[in-house]
This record gives sequence, C-alpha cells and structure tokens, in this order.
Amino acid sequence: MFKVAVIGSTGYAGAELVRIVSAHPQAELTMITSRQYAGQPFSDVYPAMAGIVNLTCQSFSAEAVSEAADVVFTALPHKTSMEVVPGLVARGKKVVDLSADFRFKDPAVYEAWYEPHEAKDLLKTAVYGLPEIYFDDIQNASLVGNPGCYPTSVLLPLLPIIKATFVDPDSIIADSKSGASGAGRSVSLASHYCEVNEGLKAYNVAKHRHNPEMDEVLSLFCGRTIRTTFTPHLVPMTRGMLTTIYVELTEDVSIQDVASLLDSFYADKPFVRICSPGRFPNTLHVKGTNYCDIGFQVATGTKRLVLISAIDNLVKGASGQAVQNMNIMLGLPETAGLDQLPFLL
Amino acid sequence: MFKVAVIGSTGYAGAELVRIVSAHPQAELTMITSRQYAGQPFSDVYPAMAGIVNLTCQSFSAEAVSEAADVVFTALPHKTSMEVVPGLVARGKKVVDLSADFRFKDPAVYEAWYEPHEAKDLLKTAVYGLPEIYFDDIQNASLVGNPGCYPTSVLLPLLPIIKATFVDPDSIIADSKSGASGAGRSVSLASHYCEVNEGLKAYNVAKHRHNPEMDEVLSLFCGRTIRTTFTPHLVPMTRGMLTTIYVELTEDVSIQDVASLLDSFYADKPFVRICSPGRFPNTLHVKGTNYCDIGFQVATGTKRLVLISAIDNLVKGASGQAVQNMNIMLGLPETAGLDQLPFLL
Amino acid sequence: MFKVAVIGSTGYAGAELVRIVSAHPQAELTMITSRQYAGQPFSDVYPAMAGIVNLTCQSFSAEAVSEAADVVFTALPHKTSMEVVPGLVARGKKVVDLSADFRFKDPAVYEAWYEPHEAKDLLKTAVYGLPEIYFDDIQNASLVGNPGCYPTSVLLPLLPIIKATFVDPDSIIADSKSGASGAGRSVSLASHYCEVNEGLKAYNVAKHRHNPEMDEVLSLFCGRTIRTTFTPHLVPMTRGMLTTIYVELTEDVSIQDVASLLDSFYADKPFVRICSPGRFPNTLHVKGTNYCDIGFQVATGTKRLVLISAIDNLVKGASGQAVQNMNIMLGLPETAGLDQLPFLL
Amino acid sequence: MFKVAVIGSTGYAGAELVRIVSAHPQAELTMITSRQYAGQPFSDVYPAMAGIVNLTCQSFSAEAVSEAADVVFTALPHKTSMEVVPGLVARGKKVVDLSADFRFKDPAVYEAWYEPHEAKDLLKTAVYGLPEIYFDDIQNASLVGNPGCYPTSVLLPLLPIIKATFVDPDSIIADSKSGASGAGRSVSLASHYCEVNEGLKAYNVAKHRHNPEMDEVLSLFCGRTIRTTFTPHLVPMTRGMLTTIYVELTEDVSIQDVASLLDSFYADKPFVRICSPGRFPNTLHVKGTNYCDIGFQVATGTKRLVLISAIDNLVKGASGQAVQNMNIMLGLPETAGLDQLPFLL
Repeated sequence: MFKVAVIGSTGYAGAELVRIVSAHPQAELTMITSRQYAGQPFSDVYPAMAGIVNLTCQSFSAEAVSEAADVVFTALPHKTSMEVVPGLVARGKKVVDLSADFRFKDPAVYEAWYEPHEAKDLLKTAVYGLPEIYFDDIQNASLVGNPGCYPTSVLLPLLPIIKATFVDPDSIIADSKSGASGAGRSVSLASHYCEVNEGLKAYNVAKHRHNPEMDEVLSLFCGRTIRTTFTPHLVPMTRGMLTTIYVELTEDVSIQDVASLLDSFYADKPFVRICSPGRFPNTLHVKGTNYCDIGFQVATGTKRLVLISAIDNLVKGASGQAVQNMNIMLGLPETAGLDQLPFLL
Repeated sequence: MFKVAVIGSTGYAGAELVRIVSAHPQAELTMITSRQYAGQPFSDVYPAMAGIVNLTCQSFSAEAVSEAADVVFTALPHKTSMEVVPGLVARGKKVVDLSADFRFKDPAVYEAWYEPHEAKDLLKTAVYGLPEIYFDDIQNASLVGNPGCYPTSVLLPLLPIIKATFVDPDSIIADSKSGASGAGRSVSLASHYCEVNEGLKAYNVAKHRHNPEMDEVLSLFCGRTIRTTFTPHLVPMTRGMLTTIYVELTEDVSIQDVASLLDSFYADKPFVRICSPGRFPNTLHVKGTNYCDIGFQVATGTKRLVLISAIDNLVKGASGQAVQNMNIMLGLPETAGLDQLPFLL
Repeated sequence: MFKVAVIGSTGYAGAELVRIVSAHPQAELTMITSRQYAGQPFSDVYPAMAGIVNLTCQSFSAEAVSEAADVVFTALPHKTSMEVVPGLVARGKKVVDLSADFRFKDPAVYEAWYEPHEAKDLLKTAVYGLPEIYFDDIQNASLVGNPGCYPTSVLLPLLPIIKATFVDPDSIIADSKSGASGAGRSVSLASHYCEVNEGLKAYNVAKHRHNPEMDEVLSLFCGRTIRTTFTPHLVPMTRGMLTTIYVELTEDVSIQDVASLLDSFYADKPFVRICSPGRFPNTLHVKGTNYCDIGFQVATGTKRLVLISAIDNLVKGASGQAVQNMNIMLGLPETAGLDQLPFLL
Repeated sequence: MFKVAVIGSTGYAGAELVRIVSAHPQAELTMITSRQYAGQPFSDVYPAMAGIVNLTCQSFSAEAVSEAADVVFTALPHKTSMEVVPGLVARGKKVVDLSADFRFKDPAVYEAWYEPHEAKDLLKTAVYGLPEIYFDDIQNASLVGNPGCYPTSVLLPLLPIIKATFVDPDSIIADSKSGASGAGRSVSLASHYCEVNEGLKAYNVAKHRHNPEMDEVLSLFCGRTIRTTFTPHLVPMTRGMLTTIYVELTEDVSIQDVASLLDSFYADKPFVRICSPGRFPNTLHVKGTNYCDIGFQVATGTKRLVLISAIDNLVKGASGQAVQNMNIMLGLPETAGLDQLPFLL
C-alpha cells in the first residue's frame, strides 16, 4: 500500500481525491490537510463520508506530510501550489499538482496569464499529466502538472486528429460547457444557487486561462504554433463538461475515416470511449467516472469536422486524472481505484 | 379589440400564446382549440391560469375559428399546419403560423428536410416573421411564417454583421444551447426528467432542420449562398437559449467597431439589447421576455469574431415573436402586450 | 401616481419589489437604495432590467427618501429595519417593512428569538400585513410589518379552519418546503449551487424564527395560546414554497365541508384560489404570482385534515404581499400592479 | 461466484441493480431481460455502461433464467411480478421481488389497494425485506418482497421508537419528499422535464399505496393496529428521499434519550447512520449509497418528536436494499457489493 496525502482536501477537487483514494486498492490515505477546516473531522465537512473516512483535517506542514506520505496530491489555488510543491519534491515525494502552476513549459506564458513564477526550475522536469498522450513521461516523473478540465476535454478529441493531413490546424474552435462544480467550493455570487439555476452564459470569452494551456500542448504536439478560439460556458448542473470542437477539413473525409482514426488512436486506452457514428456523448453517461466519451460528425456541406467530448469535470477533468497519473508514476495498473461505476442517473 | 384564436393551445408554444394574449391590451382571446383536450377548460390543463383564462378548449373547425377571430395563431406540428392554414387565409384571416410549414421560400428545401408541401402557393406570399429585419413585409402580410427558435437566436446577432467587409460569410459556425421546453410538451424519453436533469448533450449535429432555415434567410439577405455549421445542444433548464457564433475576420476590427455596428443596426428596435463590451448575455436575464440580448468579443489572437445571443426560446423564440408579428400586421405598437417583466429569478 | 422608494433594493425581495413597482399603474418608483451597490445603475446589478429600470442605487438617507417618496418599502435585514423605520414613520411616510422587526405584538417574543427591540412603541401601531385577514387594520396603518414567507403559507390555509369545532387547535403540525431564493442573495455555503442542487434537507427543526410568528398570529386570532410544530425544508429550486399542514379532527367531516368552508372564507379574496377536492397545488402554478393556492384532503382512517398551500415565496411570501399592503394603505384596488401573469413554465 | 439474473433490467430500479451487481465481488451477472429492449445490448439503452456491462437484453423465459442464475431479481410492475415469481420459486431459485406483490401478509389489504392476487400461497412464506429488522427471516427466505421506498424511509427511523412508552403510536404523521426517479422510466406528463423542474407538489395525499404497506409492518411489529397519516411529495431532483415524521410524546424525553435509543438499536447495522443531535440528514449525503441517515429533534413546546430520514430512493429505497437482501439470503457479508462511495456532489 502506498501512503497518500491530499493537500487542500476540502475543496471539491480535494474532496473528490479523498473519495477516490478512499476506495483505492493499493493506496492508503494517511493525511489530509485544510487551512479552513484544520482540526475538524473530514466527515463534519462532508457528512456523506461519515463512517467511511475517519481522518481529521490537518494544517499543512511539509515535514509532517512528507513523513506521512509517499505520494502527495496538491489541490490548492495556483500560486499557493508553487509555494508548497518544491519542498515536497525536494523531500523525494511524488507530487501530482492540480493547480495551473506546473502545467506550462514556457514560464513566460504562465506569467502572462497568471503571475510571477517562483519555481521555474521545476517547470523543466514537471510533466503535463495527460496520460493518454504522455504516459511514458509520467512514468518517470516526480512532479506532474495535472491538466485543466477544459484542456482535457479539448485535447483528448483533438490530438488524434490534429496532425492528419485532412484538417487545418489553424481553424480550431472549441466551445465548452461546464457544470457549476468547476468553479469550486468558495462562495461567490457567480456560484450562488439562484444565479446559476435556470441560467446559461458564456464567460471569459476568448480570454480564459485554459486557452493558452491547450494552445501550448497543441503547439508542442504539432511542432508548430497553434492558436485556438475557446469559449467556456456555465451550465446549471453540478458535474459534467461537454466540449464541441469545430475544425476545417482540407480534404473530403468520411465519418468512417474519422471513426477509424479515433478507434485506433485510443485502442488500448481504458478511459476513452469512442461513440459509434451517429451517436453523441452525454455528460450523464460519464458522471462519476474517469471516462472521456468522444463523438463526431462530418458536416459535409460546410467541410467541417465536429468533435464532441464529454467528461466529468471533477474526475477525468481533475481528481480522477490525478489518480490515473499517480497510478502510472507508481507503476500500478492505470485503472486502479478508478473503476467506480457511472452514476447512471 | 382584435379577436384572436389560438389553434393548438395546449402545447408549450400555444399555452405561452394564451398567456401573452390574455394580457394584451388590444387583443381579446376568443377561441382556443386543442385536439387532445377538446371539451376541457384550459385551466384544467394549466392550473396556473385558474381565474385568469376561462375558455374551454374546442375542436378545430375552420368555420368556427374564422367566425370567432380576426387573427389566428396556428401552433401545430408541421404538416398539420399546412392542412389548416390555407382555409384560414382563404377566409381572409391574418395568420401567424408557428410551424416550419411557411418559413421557406424554396419548397424544394422544405421538402428535402420535412415532407411534401401541400400549399406551395402560399409560400410565395408568406413572410418570414423576423420583425427586426422584415418589418415592412410583415405589415402587409396575410400569412407570417414565425421563425424557428434556433434561427432567431442565430440571425439576430449575425445579420447586422454578415455583410460587413471585415467578415468571411463562409466561415459561420453556430453553437446553440437550448432549454428543454424547446422539445415541447409531448412526452418522450428524451424529455423525461431524469434523462435531462444533470445531463448535457449535442443532438442532430450538422443535421438539424433549423439549419437550412437559417441558411436560406442568410443567403437571401446576402444575395449569395451561405452555408453554416450548426450544432444544437440540450441543457438541463426549462426556458432559454444561448447561441455562440464564430466568424472569421478578414480585417482587423476593434470591439468598439462591432459595438457601434450592432448599436446602430438595432438603435430603434425595442426587443434587442446590445451588451456593453466585456459583458455577456445570460438566459436568466431574458427569461419571460421578448428580448434578444447580444454580446460579442473579438478574439484577436485568432482573428475571429464571437457573437453571443440569449433569448427565451418560448417568447422571442416562439410565441412572443408571434405576437410581435401580429402587432405589426394589425398596425398596433410593436410592443403591445409584450411588456411583461423579466422573471429576474 | 404615488411615489415609491425601495430601501435595500438589490436583495431578492428588494429587487422583486423593484420589478413589481416598475409595472404598477398607479405607482412610480422614484428612489432605490443599496448599501452594497450605491452609485451603480440597478440594471448593472440586475441586467434583466436593462431598458426597463433606469434608476441608480443610492445610499440611504431618511431625508432624501422622505423627500422622494410617499410610500417606502424597507427590505432590510432585521435590526437594520428598526433603525431606519422610525425616522420614516416620523416623517409621515407610509412604510411596509419586510423584516421581522414589526411583525410581533409582544416585544418579549421578538426579543427571545431575535434581539433587543429599539422601537417598541411602533409595535403597538404596526399592523401585521396579512391582507386576507387584516384588511381593515391595514387600511388605516402607517406601518405594516409584512409577514414572513413561512407564516403566510401556514396561516392562509389554517385560519379559516382553526376556529371550527371539528378541529383540535393544539394538534397543528406544519411541514414547509422552500426554494432557495428564500435564503436571499447573500453568498454562503448553504446557498452555494452545488450544495443545494440535487439535495434536500430540513433545517432549524422546531427552532425556526417564523414559528413564534405564526404562533402569535394564531393565538391572537383564536383568543387562546396556540403552539405549532413547524419544520422548514430546503428544496433545489429557485422560487416557491409548499406547506403541508396536519390537524386532528374532533368530529367527522367531509371533504365537501372543508371545501365549502374555504370557498366561503375566501369568496371575495382575489389572491386565494381553492383547489377543487382531489386536486392539489403545485408551486409551478403560482410562480411569479401573488396567488396562494390551497388544497386539502380528509384522511378518514386517521381522522386528520391535511391542508396544502403553494405560494411564490418572493411574491405572496414577500414583495407581492408588500405591494398588496401598499395598495390597501393607499386606497388603491388590492390587485393593482399584481396582475402579472403566472410563468406557466 | 453466485449467478444473478435481473428481470426487468432497463427500468431505473433494474438498471441500478445491473449497476450494483456489476461491481459485486461475489456475484456474476449472467442474464438480464427486458420486454421493451429485448435483443439490444444493455449499453445501447444505458450508454454509461459501455465497456462495463456487455450483456444483451433477453426476452423473459422462466427456463432460461433458471438455467442461467441462482438468484433472480424481479424488477417488474406489480401484477407482472406475481405472474413470473411463482415459476422461479418453484424451480428453487432465490428471488428478491421489487414490486409490491410480495410485501403484504394480508392478501385482502393487497387486493384493496392493488388487484386480485394470483399467488396468495407465496405470501405466507415471503419475507418483508427490511434487513435491519427481519435479518433472520431473510436468511432463511426463498422469496423476499423488497420494501417500497417510502415505507423504508418511514420504518427505519420509526421502528426503534414506536414501542417506547414515551410515544403515542396513534399519532404518527409521515411527510415524505421524493426525487423524480421514484416514478420510474416510463414516460408520462407527470415525469416530463418541464412539468417537474422548478415545481413542487403533494400527490395521492392520504391515499398512496405505500401507506397500507407501512401500516401493516408497523402493526405487526407493535402487535396492534397502527394507522399513519402519510403524504408523499415530488421534488425537482433525480435521486433522493427525505421523510419527516411527527409523533406525540406522552412523557418528557430529552434529545439525548432519543439519540441513545437510536444509537443502540442500530449499533451493529452497517447501513444506518444516526446524526448527532442538532445535525439533520440531507439526501445529498446518501446519494448513490445504501445508507439511511437519521436525524431527530424534540419539539419541547409542543411535546412532539420529529424524526427525519434520508435515503437514496433507488439504492436503500430499492436496488441496494435488494442486493442487501440477496447477500443475507446467500450468507454473504451484508455489505458485499454495497460499498460504492457516496457521490459527494
């Protein structure tokens, strides 16, 4: 059993980590921390976990955490992560960081969208934790920057396609729709029940911080600069993210061609399910799971390819993917602890 | 007072017509029909209207309807409308039809997407009921084909822009999100509470019947063939439609340029509100109203314009717009009966 | 036209007042105040009202408000109200207060559940603003304490019954279910979208502050002490309140007897609708309206009467009832400005 | 590994059985049947299960089912169950029936509320499957009548209390609130998204079929006739049931007394969690689990005890409890396969 700590355990991503690790067959949750709830039993904060998780939230100390755990998940706001992670890596811990702090290769891009980076050295060795693409690098990583939810939902359908001769990589448009849990557990008017319920809006149009993240990964993957147009939307539901991507076709391509390409790219990837032509994903079908379901359509009249992905933003978009990364870093089966069943309803 | 009949009064669009006409200062609701609920008081079907609407649903008869009303709203399934409308027009009634049957100029397009058209002659004189564009034609029309909800949400933000030299009219992508009332009141698994709630999906991707409708209007407006890529989505809420449109820019354009163009195009249109730059519409802000709110962003890095519209699919997307058309046909103030306040929450 | 001010205009009750007064045929909204948004246009806070309400939020000053308005609605937290109201009453204004500060006759009860009362003198002349019961007193009042949402939903079905010989007034149990807007617009974890959505809970069981309020009214009405058992619940929806009341029958009574009693009690009351036997109210049927719908059942096997009421907690449960009180105080028709149609959906 | 069949696998209770049994460590799902979807892969009906459940829905045949399985869950409408179950029992199968057909001891009561019973003999040996109470009987049963969701939510909090000297067993009132999945997957206007969303209503007030079911169990348990007043409500959410129960106190009792009594009654019951005094259950905390959370309050002023239970209506209220019964019938650990984590959100 590997010993695991979750830093920032009472936010939604942290709590979902606690939930998943609790049921992991080869991991033992030995420490959880929370600034806000230090000293309180986790099950007082999340009564759902009464009788299941018996840990009490601790204040963070790098020493105590390092003593208690082999692997550390840091589910902290950006900037806070970069203050905490170096000390854990220095102590030889495997770290999966869920903030944006270790997702970028180019610190200038990070600094343009976030703020001054105080641990630039680690950016060189940190690995972008998208396991379907960077499995080998993750195996050898000490520090994984866990992808953002939006980039995960954009990259998984797009990467198998983007190098194909039949698409124009300069034509990518991604229109994403997210449930409200993506905004986290911190209270704000934007997450107030009556402001979200029965409403629907776009926000940070063409200005969201996840846009440069997906662009950097796409550019590195393609070996040339790629810029996408990206619009996030807030949808009145708790979990789930649906992304609809539009790309220009430069040649005629059939829907079967696209099916074959996707099927073959993800043939041995346990968490990607390719819909059969004519069927489209629904966030309800991935709720509570680490799956990414991918559907597609060829708009023959306008020569465009439409790709659609569905993930649970808290699982494949955050904590499930983080555990998948941990599994790979530790040499465990990629799916260990991630076989929780879909919610169905 | 003009006398008004609503044919098909117990579907959601029909009931919303009943609701709006009930409070119209210059219209009197004199007859309502319903095949399914003939003989039943309307307020038994919609108990909300107890004490407000005291009519009983009738079976449809062209004679009786024509005797009772000056203006007739037909809120029927397509095909049923084309069976009913000619007899009403022949009797000299003003008709606003909410089905697709009288929206198309080219019967071949209608027939390719729907079915054989049995009242082609009327297509020549029927007017497409988008008042912000076709006000003059509607004034003189006997028969108005009330636009689909999706085309309304796409055309209003797009038409002011599409002839500008700075956009490429072949690059239009429209990504629409609709609340569940758009699917109507007929029961089906797709509209079953537990299948919609907490789910999010695309459907009829690049194959929705509203796609040729918006394309025909755009083409006629621009004087050349326009084809759009259109994806509708179903969102877990009752009312509301948000559409995000992407167009390529062929020249540099500032967000102020776009603001000016939209502001000036809609300067005297009472039901279009242009958001100030940096603010985006929310379906919650138009719920229960005939407004179309329009926001926009210039994605400078990718040289695209993003337009976003919000409407209430049952009001500006259906019954409110139908009443607006009636007002124009009758020479009434365009806003008569349509000043119901937003719901706020 | 009477001039109206709304103090505390940006909370949900205040904004709903702004909404209703905006459309009132005999009232003009001349001033709105907001501590938090002073200096900002109301339509920046509630973009739904763009083009409809053109007022800017002011800081509160008793002088300025008194100069601008004949009638003042105070939609403030309790305690803040009692600081503001005396100055307005002293200046001869008609005041409808939506807090708890002027609902109680007995200051000791208020102080036991809230805090020290600083305007006890006004309690003697303040009238409890339940117009279906206290119409005459409201006509002559300078200051009306607008009832709480829960008491309104309990008292309207119960008062016509409670003096009947066939019920035991010591057996009242009220089980209420409220939408989330009842908790107001102040952000808190309890009103955070993901904590409310898909959840259902009781709170303040037998300890809610509205319990002594309904008990005092019942006791005064019956001329003896009445104590009810009251449980409020939070339901995942924005608007609406459903209350189910259980009372022991001391004699056999038929459902028709109950129907007759309720029908006759509310015969000339425009905002109470009695369901026919076998039909039960639904909050969806009163959404956006000032109606209270009342249903009932006789549980013959257990000799209990079940009464069920549905209101919109923001309208009949707060701002609509406040406007109804204003109408009565000003000698206007009771329904003026309150004929906004139900939302239907 | 025990072989398991699910008859009626595509309704919500059936699908939830498929879900739970799929992950059961000592059970293998060998056959699923569905009249409506015979011949179709289960994952076409529930795409969430793609890659997890690879079975195809079969038509029902008693022979084929008996050959394929040791244990059979019948998740069928009442009446259909009684046609199917006798043949399975006759073939020596262990059967857990989720309909009402085998829940009653007294066929006359069943027939008064349902219809003529065609397998009365089996009523004598069928066991009411509430494991916290009838564990021993279930161990030896061939046929278990799985309790209704409402009776489960009423009986678990009430049975430990009802024989106490300090309560009046003739004073029981149960006010239940259920999510929409309780109405099943068959389409109907009552389960149509727009009719449920943002609405709240009582239905079958004092006339619900689950009322005689809970009354019979209570009466047998107490050795005297007990009649409860029961009101079910429909709440706009998918899963979850909250029941609030009111009982008169005949003596003074403290909240600690009640806590002790409940704690001790359920000391060794893995699926009942007693809230500490002052905390109340929330359906969100049991979503996806087989837990029943129980809270309570003493209303000292009115001498009543308030008991509140929360369950997931599809799990402890249906399929989870059915698997719990199977575990007991087979001598497996009671919790086997039922340790799926709560959904948290």
